[in-house]
This record gives sequence, structure tokens and C-alpha cells, in this order.
Amino acid sequence: MTDLPTIAILGGTGKEGPGLAMRWANAGYPVIIGSRQADKAEATAAELNEKLGLDTVRGLPNEEAARVADISVLTVVQSAHQAALESLKDALQGKLLVDATARVSFPDAVAPEPPAAARIAQDILGPDVAVVAAFQNVPASALKKDLDQDVATDVLVCADDQGAADRVVELAEAGGMRAFYAGGLDNAVVVEGITALLIATNRRYSGHGTIQISGVTK
Amino acid sequence: MTDLPTIAILGGTGKEGPGLAMRWANAGYPVIIGSRQADKAEATAAELNEKLGLDTVRGLPNEEAARVADISVLTVVQSAHQAALESLKDALQGKLLVDATARVSFPDAVAPEPPAAARIAQDILGPDVAVVAAFQNVPASALKKDLDQDVATDVLVCADDQGAADRVVELAEAGGMRAFYAGGLDNAVVVEGITALLIATNRRYSGHGTIQISGVTK
Repeated sequence: MTDLPTIAILGGTGKEGPGLAMRWANAGYPVIIGSRQADKAEATAAELNEKLGLDTVRGLPNEEAARVADISVLTVVQSAHQAALESLKDALQGKLLVDATARVSFPDAVAPEPPAAARIAQDILGPDVAVVAAFQNVPASALKKDLDQDVATDVLVCADDQGAADRVVELAEAGGMRAFYAGGLDNAVVVEGITALLIATNRRYSGHGTIQISGVTK
Repeated sequence: MTDLPTIAILGGTGKEGPGLAMRWANAGYPVIIGSRQADKAEATAAELNEKLGLDTVRGLPNEEAARVADISVLTVVQSAHQAALESLKDALQGKLLVDATARVSFPDAVAPEPPAAARIAQDILGPDVAVVAAFQNVPASALKKDLDQDVATDVLVCADDQGAADRVVELAEAGGMRAFYAGGLDNAVVVEGITALLIATNRRYSGHGTIQISGVTK
């Protein structure tokens, strides 16, 4: 047993979700993979347990995962964002939701217009859910590398609720990511847009660009 | 004499302008400090020449500076942005203008809404000026440190004209800054917004945060 909060990764069978789940499970957090399809959730959970030599990752339907968890992290594709939130509204009341959605228009890698995806989430979920925007720029590939190494990107955390932001900064750091509070929820549109900048940069040069903050002492 | 382009820093007597001017003058570029007031421009130019042991920095009224220069860099305060552009429209035709304006709403450090300041500049100046957005996040304090050291921040360069963007990347690097193309001119609103994120980060922790890109090879 652990005193650490239970983390649900909603839409956790995609590209980003399993990497985050793996890092938190490895750090000792009870983790639930959520999916619209229970069998897909269970299959991803079983894969992660096998890879890590653990049995602490479970798979559940998204709504049940959100109800059981202390903190939920939404990692659905951008086209599923609003529908997922509407279906999870009841389950998330009184809880903390981390929204990792970055909306980027392809093929031109154009930055999204406000409001931020996380602001849209807050508007759908209502004031009794503490919505925090984070992990939008973290490449799935970076998470899956050596678990003993820190992730080579910094996490910018935006929320109107400072306490909720601080919990997510702590959670990111537990997963091996440097993380920084970066202002209120509306600032999250900038963090989404950074994904567009990095895509343009990657195309012009070579590599997989990530953002890092320097000059700040915590 | 030099083959390097002449750089005008328009509104160059403020916080940001002298630091950029100093770095380019030190790298051998002919530099003109522009100001609405010729005497202020001349005074700043004289200070920079004295500091650097050079005589290559001149001071001129903004409009004349823009006419003489090959590349102009606009570093006016955000409240003066539109009026400055309107007054410089004729002088800048056929030239390259770098817009360093970051609009941030205080005291809450809220990211600006689109369009980007540089897009507003492009709309005012018309299609015969190549507008490039860059240097919005570079703290004046970082530029003024040891000239032999690279600036501890990366410059994200946004432009619709790739050739113009590449010239500004080169110019930034000549001034000791790592620089990366980061997409079309509309993406510049994200770069402006990064300034808001960094202000929020600086307030929450301590220090002067800057942004760096890693994982990209040029």
C-alpha cells in the first residue's frame, strides 16, 4: 500500500498516455489506464506491468477510472477532447483534472487560437473541478526512454488554482520531469502553441526539439 | 569598411535596444541607434562607442535610421508599437523589419491574443516589407552581460518569408544568441506569450527564466 495519490490516465492507450503511466507507476504511484474500451485499457495496463515488473497498473473504462482516481490526466487526441470531457463531467466533480491536450493545425503547424484547451475543459466541467494544463509539449518518445534518466523536456504548468498547479508540478517531478508553474489557465494556449513552434523547428533542422527553462531556482 | 549589413535599432534608446546594438556592433556590424529624438539617439550611440572602444555606432532619428539601414529591428515599448510602424511605413518599403515586440498584460502576466504584434506590423507596412518576429523573450539584462559569453536564451524566429527568417537567425547568432526558425509569422503570438509564462515562473520561484531549445541539430 502507498500514501501516494492514484493517477488515472484517461485516453491512456494512445501515444502519450502509456509513457506517463509508466513513469508514475515506476515511481510508486498506483496508476489506472482509462479507455473507452475496457479491454484496450486492460491490455495496455498488462503490458506496462510486464515491462516494469509490477502489478500496480490497472485498466478501467474512462469514467470508472476517473471516479476511482485522485488525479486524472486527460491524454485523448484533440478531436476527442470535448466529447471526452462531456462524458466525464460527473465523474470528475470535486477532483483534479490535468489536461495535456495541444491543438495544432497540420500540415502548417499553426498555433491554436484561444481559449486554451484546458479553459474549454474548465468551462465544460464547471467550477468544482480543478483543471490544470500540463504535459502538452512532452514527446511520447522522450517518456519511453531510459526510466532512470530525467525526461529531456520541461513541463510548464498553468492553472488558476495555485495549490492544484503545485500538486501537478510535484507529480511531474516524481515522473522525472523538471516542471514549473507558468501562470493562469489561459496561459496554457501558449504552451499548446509551443508544440507548433517545435514542429516547425524540427522540420527546418533535424531532431526532436524540446523546451527547457533556465535561470530559475526553485 | 565591412560587407556586413547595416542594422538600425528603432526605438533603440530603451531597455532592449542598447543591448542588441552592443552585441552587433561588437561583432563588426555597422549599427544605427534610432530614436524619435535625435539627441537621445546620439547620446546612446556615443555611450555604446565608448563602452566598446568603437566609432561604428551612429545615432539618427528613427525614420532616417530605417532608410539608411539594410535591416531594422523595432524595439519600442508596446504602447508605441502601432504609431511607430505607421510613421516608419514609407522608410521601410522594400526592406527587412524585425519586430521584437512582446505584448504582455500586467500585473497578471497574461499572454496576448492573436494577431501577433509582428502580424499587426505586416498589415500596417504592407506586402513589400519582409517582417520577421524575433528577440521578444530576450531579457535586456542577459544582453548586457559579458560580451564574450553567449546569451543564455534562445531566439525563436517566425516569418512567412523563409529567406528573411534565415537572415535573422544568422544575425542573432552573430550576436551570440542561439536561434531557431519556429514557423510562420502568426506563430509569433506564441513567442510573445512565452514572455508571460516566464514572468509567472519568475514570480513563483526566483531568478530570471529564459527559454532554451534542446534536441535540434542545425
